[in-house]
Amino acid sequence: MLHSSVLEAVSKASKDYEGYGLSLMEMSHRSKPVKDMVSETESLARELLNVPDNYHILFLQGGASLQFAMVPINLLDMTMTADYTDTGSWSAKAIKEARLYGNVNIVCSSKDSVYNHIPKQLNQSDDAVYLHITSNNTIYGTQWHEFPKLINDGYLVADMSSDIFSRSIDISQFGLIYAGAQKNIGPAGVTMVIVRDEILDKVSREIPTMMKYRTHIDKGSMFNTPPVISIFAVNRTLFWLKSVGGIDFIEKKNKLKAKKLYDEIDNNELFSSPINVEDRSMMNIPFVFTQKGKDESSFLSFCKDRGLETLKGHRSVGGFRASIYNAMPDEGVDALIQAMKEYDPN
Amino acid sequence: MLHSSVLEAVSKASKDYEGYGLSLMEMSHRSKPVKDMVSETESLARELLNVPDNYHILFLQGGASLQFAMVPINLLDMTMTADYTDTGSWSAKAIKEARLYGNVNIVCSSKDSVYNHIPKQLNQSDDAVYLHITSNNTIYGTQWHEFPKLINDGYLVADMSSDIFSRSIDISQFGLIYAGAQKNIGPAGVTMVIVRDEILDKVSREIPTMMKYRTHIDKGSMFNTPPVISIFAVNRTLFWLKSVGGIDFIEKKNKLKAKKLYDEIDNNELFSSPINVEDRSMMNIPFVFTQKGKDESSFLSFCKDRGLETLKGHRSVGGFRASIYNAMPDEGVDALIQAMKEYDPN
Repeated sequence: MLHSSVLEAVSKASKDYEGYGLSLMEMSHRSKPVKDMVSETESLARELLNVPDNYHILFLQGGASLQFAMVPINLLDMTMTADYTDTGSWSAKAIKEARLYGNVNIVCSSKDSVYNHIPKQLNQSDDAVYLHITSNNTIYGTQWHEFPKLINDGYLVADMSSDIFSRSIDISQFGLIYAGAQKNIGPAGVTMVIVRDEILDKVSREIPTMMKYRTHIDKGSMFNTPPVISIFAVNRTLFWLKSVGGIDFIEKKNKLKAKKLYDEIDNNELFSSPINVEDRSMMNIPFVFTQKGKDESSFLSFCKDRGLETLKGHRSVGGFRASIYNAMPDEGVDALIQAMKEYDPN
Repeated sequence: MLHSSVLEAVSKASKDYEGYGLSLMEMSHRSKPVKDMVSETESLARELLNVPDNYHILFLQGGASLQFAMVPINLLDMTMTADYTDTGSWSAKAIKEARLYGNVNIVCSSKDSVYNHIPKQLNQSDDAVYLHITSNNTIYGTQWHEFPKLINDGYLVADMSSDIFSRSIDISQFGLIYAGAQKNIGPAGVTMVIVRDEILDKVSREIPTMMKYRTHIDKGSMFNTPPVISIFAVNRTLFWLKSVGGIDFIEKKNKLKAKKLYDEIDNNELFSSPINVEDRSMMNIPFVFTQKGKDESSFLSFCKDRGLETLKGHRSVGGFRASIYNAMPDEGVDALIQAMKEYDPN
């Protein structure tokens, strides 16, 4: 979901970008207006997230899925160890790619309880280069509300695809953050990476040019033709976010939206949450029928008739799931709560 | 440059895709309308290029620059040899990445003559897995009009980023073709790959999931969230191309456009072409002042005043360059020819 001002801006820029008489899709990425736009997007991200000067902000292609491999290829040598938390399907995918590039130590896993919580005990390695977390687990609806403290000299690496720009974070805790744009900041096709300069250039392998963070840093995300139209949508989303009050504002709003939905789930006898209270996500809220075996499709059609779509839980967990990213207005959450109140399964 | 119908369609879809009441940027890539659109794009490409059934068509991210590494990581084992032609800067970049993955034999190079021709003598290896060419060299303005004949059991691999869909080709000559979309078929952010099934799965290395062609084949380009809006622009471009008469039509048109511009360059005493006649590109047409030392900026401003932009030659060769991709109308070429006729350097 994107704010309507973003859709309007992209629609306009597809035909005529800022009065230049050319579509943004036709303009050279080396032209001043495009370079200025990309650079403004970086500045907006830096300002909103309070990114320190020793961190680079990159706009890349390939999604978080490519980052699963880019992170270890850049940061983990074959003789080194990286710690990984296993809190859901995306974590598992990140772990699979990291194993191609070095030793991977799984510090915790909530897999046996269908990922319904964030483990509190982490068996960290003494010498791990980094500890990888998935900050928000879209399928299972858990979120790291407090980031793990490291017991070694490593740094945190986080896949924040589904909660970046939804809450304030202290960037300096992290060595690297990556995020596919398509949840909170834009359309599919662009991936944001925030990386602390000093963690790079420590591995001995030769890295393919496009997979190397340093390549993109040296060229200001313009080593090859960047996905200009997608970056522009991020630009307009961050501009909108800034104009409504930035991260502090949206975090408060997200908390309120999530709280009222969790309150309804907890108070409505028909529904319950399978997720540990302290680990509940503010972005993805799964819930189930309290009584097992009830007909889920009937509630889904009841909701659909009211214009409430995509509430089906992921096939691996079943039940229902409401995704309430930044751009989801209060009204959407209120309408779902109303439907939950009014639904009569008999 | 994209056809105006493409810009119009993208602009509309950014707000409301086909009356679904949602922006294409907000729709799930797992939703039927998006899956249908991607599948239609594949069918259009298959039909226009006459792609045989044993070839897959993929829509990926990362541009030709990522393909420079993906090609050898998938096709070239450390003990194998690949033949590469060196006909320009893009060839050189492809060669650099291939060297990370196996033996690279440079079969020819026109570097010493500033890449002003396509070499006719190729020193092919007896056992090369493939021979890599850059079918059109944007910076230097050369093009392979006849593709090399292999003397071994290998297959051709081509970077066709700047001339795919501009002329008819016999796909069965090739094992793999890749093309960043941003020249002839769409905006930056999507890369098309056409690959013959039987050439895959022959290397022993473990390939990162996102870098493996088989991953994307198995998931119909939907392993991860694809760049939906960019693929849609490709869809509309191919639809436009089909509606005007397909490849045969556009090839004739491209030949005529190129011919009249080359005729002017050859007949106008002020200008000349640095490129061997038989290797001249139909897409990128460089030309220089016949008399050395003349003020190029004066001709560039003369053109700019008539709305003719981006005519400056690449910094590595200087002079002028007209890029006349598929969507460039005759009028654009005519206006340049008129400017060349009317320009008086004195």
